[in-house]
Amino acid sequence: HYGHLLKPYKMILQILSLHQVSPAAERLRYILNEEDDMPTPTLFTEMDTLQREGDELEWKESARWVKFEEKVEEGGERWSKPHVSTLSLHSLFELRTCLQTGTVLLDLEGYSLPQIVDDIIERQIEEGMISPELREKITFVLLRKHRHQTKKPIHRSLADIGKSSSSTSECPVLKCSSSCKKKRLHYGNSHAQSRSMNDIADTPSTDQLKNKFMKKIPRDAEASNVLVGEVDFLNKPFVAFVRLAQATTLGGLTEVPVPTRFLFILLGPQGKAKSYNEIGRAIATLMVDDLFSDVAYKARDREDLIAGIDEFLDEVIVLPPGEWDPKIRIEPPKKVTSADKRKSVFSLNELGQMNGTAGGGGGLAQDEEMPQQHELGEELAFTGRFCGGLYLDIKRKLPWLPSDIYEGFHIQSISAVLFIYLGCITNAITFGGLLGDATDNYQGVMESFLGTALAGTVFCLFSGQPLIILSSTGPILIFEKLLFEFSKNNDIDYMELRLWIGIHSCLQCFILVATDASYIIKYMTRFTEEGFSSLISFIFISDAIKKMVGSFKYYPIDTDFKPDYVTTYKCECLAPDPTKWFVYSQPRYHLCLTKKSLCSPLSLLSLDWSQLSKKECVKYGGSLVGKSCKYVPDLALMSFILFFGTYSMTVSLKKFKFSRYFPTKLRKLISDFSIFMSIMTFVGLDMLLGLKTPKLIVPTEFKPTRPGRGWLVMPFGKNPWWVYVASFVPALLVTILIFMDQQISAVIVNRKENKLKKGCGYHLDLLWVGVLMAACSFMGLPWYVAATVISIAHIDSLKMESESSAPGEQPQFLGVREQRMTGILVFALTGVSIFLAPVLKFIPMPVLYGVFLYMGVASLSGIQFWDRIKLCMMPSKHQPDFSYLRHVPLRKVHLFTLVQIICLAVLWILKSTFLAIIFPVMILGLMVVRKMLDMVFSQHDLAWLDDLLPEKEKKKKEDAKKKGKEKDKKKPKADDSEEEVRNLSFCCPLYFYQSTSSGGINYMNVEYV
Amino acid sequence: HYGHLLKPYKMILQILSLHQVSPAAERLRYILNEEDDMPTPTLFTEMDTLQREGDELEWKESARWVKFEEKVEEGGERWSKPHVSTLSLHSLFELRTCLQTGTVLLDLEGYSLPQIVDDIIERQIEEGMISPELREKITFVLLRKHRHQTKKPIHRSLADIGKSSSSTSECPVLKCSSSCKKKRLHYGNSHAQSRSMNDIADTPSTDQLKNKFMKKIPRDAEASNVLVGEVDFLNKPFVAFVRLAQATTLGGLTEVPVPTRFLFILLGPQGKAKSYNEIGRAIATLMVDDLFSDVAYKARDREDLIAGIDEFLDEVIVLPPGEWDPKIRIEPPKKVTSADKRKSVFSLNELGQMNGTAGGGGGLAQDEEMPQQHELGEELAFTGRFCGGLYLDIKRKLPWLPSDIYEGFHIQSISAVLFIYLGCITNAITFGGLLGDATDNYQGVMESFLGTALAGTVFCLFSGQPLIILSSTGPILIFEKLLFEFSKNNDIDYMELRLWIGIHSCLQCFILVATDASYIIKYMTRFTEEGFSSLISFIFISDAIKKMVGSFKYYPIDTDFKPDYVTTYKCECLAPDPTKWFVYSQPRYHLCLTKKSLCSPLSLLSLDWSQLSKKECVKYGGSLVGKSCKYVPDLALMSFILFFGTYSMTVSLKKFKFSRYFPTKLRKLISDFSIFMSIMTFVGLDMLLGLKTPKLIVPTEFKPTRPGRGWLVMPFGKNPWWVYVASFVPALLVTILIFMDQQISAVIVNRKENKLKKGCGYHLDLLWVGVLMAACSFMGLPWYVAATVISIAHIDSLKMESESSAPGEQPQFLGVREQRMTGILVFALTGVSIFLAPVLKFIPMPVLYGVFLYMGVASLSGIQFWDRIKLCMMPSKHQPDFSYLRHVPLRKVHLFTLVQIICLAVLWILKSTFLAIIFPVMILGLMVVRKMLDMVFSQHDLAWLDDLLPEKEKKKKEDAKKKGKEKDKKKPKADDSEEEVRNLSFCCPLYFYQSTSSGGINYMNVEYV
Repeated sequence: HYGHLLKPYKMILQILSLHQVSPAAERLRYILNEEDDMPTPTLFTEMDTLQREGDELEWKESARWVKFEEKVEEGGERWSKPHVSTLSLHSLFELRTCLQTGTVLLDLEGYSLPQIVDDIIERQIEEGMISPELREKITFVLLRKHRHQTKKPIHRSLADIGKSSSSTSECPVLKCSSSCKKKRLHYGNSHAQSRSMNDIADTPSTDQLKNKFMKKIPRDAEASNVLVGEVDFLNKPFVAFVRLAQATTLGGLTEVPVPTRFLFILLGPQGKAKSYNEIGRAIATLMVDDLFSDVAYKARDREDLIAGIDEFLDEVIVLPPGEWDPKIRIEPPKKVTSADKRKSVFSLNELGQMNGTAGGGGGLAQDEEMPQQHELGEELAFTGRFCGGLYLDIKRKLPWLPSDIYEGFHIQSISAVLFIYLGCITNAITFGGLLGDATDNYQGVMESFLGTALAGTVFCLFSGQPLIILSSTGPILIFEKLLFEFSKNNDIDYMELRLWIGIHSCLQCFILVATDASYIIKYMTRFTEEGFSSLISFIFISDAIKKMVGSFKYYPIDTDFKPDYVTTYKCECLAPDPTKWFVYSQPRYHLCLTKKSLCSPLSLLSLDWSQLSKKECVKYGGSLVGKSCKYVPDLALMSFILFFGTYSMTVSLKKFKFSRYFPTKLRKLISDFSIFMSIMTFVGLDMLLGLKTPKLIVPTEFKPTRPGRGWLVMPFGKNPWWVYVASFVPALLVTILIFMDQQISAVIVNRKENKLKKGCGYHLDLLWVGVLMAACSFMGLPWYVAATVISIAHIDSLKMESESSAPGEQPQFLGVREQRMTGILVFALTGVSIFLAPVLKFIPMPVLYGVFLYMGVASLSGIQFWDRIKLCMMPSKHQPDFSYLRHVPLRKVHLFTLVQIICLAVLWILKSTFLAIIFPVMILGLMVVRKMLDMVFSQHDLAWLDDLLPEKEKKKKEDAKKKGKEKDKKKPKADDSEEEVRNLSFCCPLYFYQSTSSGGINYMNVEYV
Repeated sequence: HYGHLLKPYKMILQILSLHQVSPAAERLRYILNEEDDMPTPTLFTEMDTLQREGDELEWKESARWVKFEEKVEEGGERWSKPHVSTLSLHSLFELRTCLQTGTVLLDLEGYSLPQIVDDIIERQIEEGMISPELREKITFVLLRKHRHQTKKPIHRSLADIGKSSSSTSECPVLKCSSSCKKKRLHYGNSHAQSRSMNDIADTPSTDQLKNKFMKKIPRDAEASNVLVGEVDFLNKPFVAFVRLAQATTLGGLTEVPVPTRFLFILLGPQGKAKSYNEIGRAIATLMVDDLFSDVAYKARDREDLIAGIDEFLDEVIVLPPGEWDPKIRIEPPKKVTSADKRKSVFSLNELGQMNGTAGGGGGLAQDEEMPQQHELGEELAFTGRFCGGLYLDIKRKLPWLPSDIYEGFHIQSISAVLFIYLGCITNAITFGGLLGDATDNYQGVMESFLGTALAGTVFCLFSGQPLIILSSTGPILIFEKLLFEFSKNNDIDYMELRLWIGIHSCLQCFILVATDASYIIKYMTRFTEEGFSSLISFIFISDAIKKMVGSFKYYPIDTDFKPDYVTTYKCECLAPDPTKWFVYSQPRYHLCLTKKSLCSPLSLLSLDWSQLSKKECVKYGGSLVGKSCKYVPDLALMSFILFFGTYSMTVSLKKFKFSRYFPTKLRKLISDFSIFMSIMTFVGLDMLLGLKTPKLIVPTEFKPTRPGRGWLVMPFGKNPWWVYVASFVPALLVTILIFMDQQISAVIVNRKENKLKKGCGYHLDLLWVGVLMAACSFMGLPWYVAATVISIAHIDSLKMESESSAPGEQPQFLGVREQRMTGILVFALTGVSIFLAPVLKFIPMPVLYGVFLYMGVASLSGIQFWDRIKLCMMPSKHQPDFSYLRHVPLRKVHLFTLVQIICLAVLWILKSTFLAIIFPVMILGLMVVRKMLDMVFSQHDLAWLDDLLPEKEKKKKEDAKKKGKEKDKKKPKADDSEEEVRNLSFCCPLYFYQSTSSGGINYMNVEYV
């Protein structure tokens, strides 16, 4: 007995197979493609509702839309947060009927509201929809004045206070003693009354002009006004949709002085205010919809508008009532499908890509969704010509040179310069100190400062990627240390040997540049990059912690100290045993002569030993006796407080950007200057307490650290000739090291997600690194290479975000302020720092270690590897929705992470041994491991977790092509039928439903009856 | 020319005015009301899609629903997070058509899947929907085996690895060399093939039985299975909806061993897999919808189901495509509209209460949305009888006594006991120490411990609200201090006077109890409560910080210390000038006799002064000379680290509950024990360093702190007789103080949001406080009263949350584990602590101050007043969506906050002066201020920001009644018409659209044609 139902079903199939797309889409495709060159203006939509204030009627703004809805909160008298408009399906259908039955006036010549209202009413009377006697009443209502949320209703709040005592009398007695009731019934019939027929001014009011909201609306925007209200003289709704031929400012209609293009009016009988409101919200939401607003601008007739609604309905996202509370305001999403993408789709079949996409034959479809491959671009293409890459680099970068200068003048640069400057001098001091230790002061803090300033400035001026910050790095430090020991043991002059290594290395760099060797960087995938950069981060973190722990050793705490027995704690310098005196004094006497102090044996004997300081005591051979000699009070703990305080304050201030307090700009400022502010705070705290914590020691005199050496190293004379040649071998190691270190940092800086626009210059960079190597070698300064962590920090501090235009829209990351000024300034400041000693000497070292720790941790946080490590500790249901987790089984993700952890552990162990010198070779090892991963993981998984290696990528593409062809060959029929079936919507009630109303194909309805 | 459109519009109006509600709602109302007594079981829905594994067809689970959707992530091979199912409107309409055209079998007698499938196919053949030759093919497909997500597809991952190398050959050669293609075309025609016709087992597999997911599904649940897939032998869809007469376990059909009740099958031609999936998701979402599942259980025919969909569609929430990306998975909301509420609404007119509710005539409607008033319930009703309240209290609490004991046996109690115990002894020690100072050790730490244990145990055993924790409080401390000074200055015996005050106060409490005086607590609104509790919180915070700062004074840091000049730092004890010796020695000699040490002048002279400790040195009249005498190294900084570390670690561990790491249970455990863990950590750190930080000093001997006094205070003998009478006056002050302190804490504990079920006993509590006062006075122990902060902490640590049943559902706060055991244990432990000295002595005081700070801050965070203070610092667009902000203008909120801040500031200043003694009267002052606020703020605003005072509330209710009556009288006609209009849906395309399909009222379609 279900047989009768089969017939219409068959009918639909027959009918729809005639239509390739839905009739609505067909219509829209036609009108939207008509003149696609001119973009339609953005629409600002305001919805006003009719309300009674005492005995006055007025239109009160109740919501507005730029992209998202902002509602006037009645009680709160303020704007709600922008939120996604959640509509009821019911109101959308009601709206559809309204547009079907109401007056639609397209391209009306309107210059003022009264005239427009007149035209609408005229039309309605003409069509017999309202009786002529309603004309005056409707006109009167529609021309009531509009109150916008901007106006502070002071009188209301006073009234409100009054209300609490006399809230029962609704109609103020004083104001309208007798005519109160009358007025309500006879709207505008009596012109004699105080209120005129037209409350709307012709010119925009000062309120409108002063409205600050204007800056959130694009310049070319036009307004659409939605007016809804209930009146007691109508018994059926009065609906009108008007598009003006020219956008016109209609007096005080709109909150902002934006010309009105669209007008939607809905007046209805009393009792259904909520329903009218919902309809108003529905049309307002439609008007700000990119697609529908286009339709509204280009619609030729009522049917086009309805087709627009139908298309909207078809794209609509539906939440089941049992799973969502409509009262929850949905925060605007981070990103939405762009309008262009939506416009390009006009067939229903492309739909259904909902969050479900529940598998099912869609297995292939899902695999198609491959992640974007990282493309290193043509910068790394192998040209095959001599210096081809270098030539292209220069050609690419030269035009940007002027903008590299003037784009640096921005307030953000100041914070970046301060931040990076502090990082740089911390680095310079740390590495300077370590180098001084390692090379017996051949290179010390002074050389480190000078070299950083020189190399950095030159690099930032001429390099291909001025965002890279040069610095001494760990591997080079280790190399220098080994080299110094080698030359000391073999009686070779260290500085001369070093100079020759530098020259060789420089030449080798030139060869690498000339042969476009940097192209092999292409084989460095995320795996290698992340391995390298997390290693560097770990080194930063461990160094910072080591330094901190070190201060506990340097300032040992007397844990047995009993405050009450303070009398038993002392440290006395005892004179050496006079009988042994002459034995010891002789060698010391020698040394003493060089100093000013009186240190003849005679004077030594006459010394007041108890007055000597610890150092002096030891120097003169005294012995320190006492419980407190070994200990230094407070400093270790104070150092810890400064260290940890700086770190955690920086972290909290960085996070402050995402808090709710204070205006966005102030928050951003605080976040940008977080490091500077924490440093200042803890320097201040340190000064306040006045403890002798270890301070930053900046050289004050401009001279080499080691007295014996000058500012220039001579290439010949101190070593035998074969050393000049043999230094080629260590130079090779240095070259590999520099090449890897430099280029990996460059790749990380040039990552696609940083959205750099000015391109990069791997070859040019390497050239300058080579040149600077030789230069530094000649001057006896340390060697410099790109420092990953500081470079990333540099990029981060220069990131630009869009000022979000529509309220609720997320600011977009636009790119990085690419310029040379910040770098140049940083290094100029570093150079000047030699003279800044009086200021810098207040900075305690633990504060700088805290900054180090922060830099290490912060650079870890951006790394996917680190995210994956964290995943291991989360139960799978709490894991964040990373895209690779949707596509790669968890155990494979963990396996991949494990491989990385093992690699890192091995690297870390090697780094800690003498093998540290072959560090660069180990990075090459990482690339080999990555190559082997190809055998364990599928290319699909690797594409999500890592990047594909170039040849694999090529192969995959070819495979895909081949496959496609084979498919085409194999089953041409199946494909055709697929195409057919796709176009044949087998069950499509929406069309059906459309066709009933569009009056097009209606015979199937007859079938039904 | 729009005239022809008017006609149907009028028609709709006419037709719909006949229907009071929509036809769908009418239908549903009928079937749902039929047998509303039996609730329908919860439905677990599983959707399986047909997939090809190599050459095998199988059904693969692709999503499941308990309440929210969980999708199988193809690539990730795991379940997605539960999320709200976002559907496309299109798929819902398609589903509707499917149900209209497909086979619907209700109450089918089915015992196995093959039989059910047979029945369906039989029916379809009968109705001519499919040709009989498809029978075998369809049966074969439908009986393929089901693979659920629980099974680890190991073979697949191996295959996956293989695929990376040989992904081009889709059809494994070894397995099906020749028959591969054949098989695909001839489904199940050849029984000779390895696969049998029926892959479905009859009994549930072990995988099913072992599935842990079972515990997330309610016991009585039934399953609905959705099967969708594309096959190549059909040219139109095969649709069936089956409801079985009895829920039956159909072998391995469902992931869990839950009997199947519903079956939805959709097989269709190839090429539209995505569309089928969406339809499957739509029916699955419908099946878990509370309302639709009810309809599905009770539907009599196809039309009922369709009416169910229509109702669903009508309630649906729609997101505009331009404002939301369908790919975003929406997290389940905190709460959804309950099914019952939804069921009670069957008219469309109640709809439209969307997040907009955009004002517009709805001004009144919004005001109706008043916040829930806090109701103190009958506990505080004025009975008018002698001891009426007390009698009721006892009557109310007595039946709960057994459960008060056995409900205490729960693992959560342990953490609560530990937490509160630590808070209590910290309090006991702190107040004990302070009292000892204030009363010259008449009451000291020993008395404090003993009193706390005694009073606490008694109160927890017999009181009305055993969740309240008694403790010494600040105001009482101040009172004791003043009293002691007074009695010392006037030569009155302090202990006796105190005893009499205690007796008087006890009697006054009895009078208050007997007269039901506690009912005035009703006049304490949120304003007063919050004022009081934030004051207490601030006292906690400021005390903790003061103590911390104090340790910097107690252990001064030598900020001028130069490590190098350690030799110049010492502290020597110099013997007093021998010439002056005899002058000084005489008085001291006297004292020395009482001690054991040799301190005759002779021995003094023979003393080795340099061996004396600091204290001894001072005692014997020596003078301390040296730079380091004044200073104590490290201890202050270490104290700070311990203090701040404990505080911040506790805060972080508390927050850890909301992190993503570790399973929920472990996180909850960590969060519950956060205080204990931080204390342990920092005690450990302190022990590790071994510094002599100030430790908790617990009395080891059981005897009064002051040697002179015994354990009992005699009432007579030491003071003149009039003192016994006059002590009535100070007793009155103490009574007010105790009354206010006790009852405000009780109100806070009994707040509605704590969902206490066992009621409270204000009168009973006060009775016991009075009794304990007298008892403590007799024993010379401090007085005890409810402590707000610790009581709140007690409640917090005993909160119960529901084990969330459906995945994605938020756990609900169920209430508090109301029992007497935790309190009794806490105080028993406090008593025992006198003997725990060897363990407790390791706890450094700064750690306890850290706990204090945490308690203060934590109890602030739950207070609305604090939220409002924070609002002042937020720009309005970033403010959280507090409900009162939607209803009260921001400036009024700020004004209210300002008033509170001023009140608090005044209280704080008064507290710091001698006026502290009238602290309780000041709380009464707060109530007066609140009364005055009635004149400044409207009742509407106060209802949102505060609570209404009892008489106002009454008045308001009466007003509302009166108003309602007046309204009724005034415009009976208007109301009637409103009713009429409400029922007359003026434009209702959905009905229209329904009527076309339901075959009911179709003549208006004819109009259209």
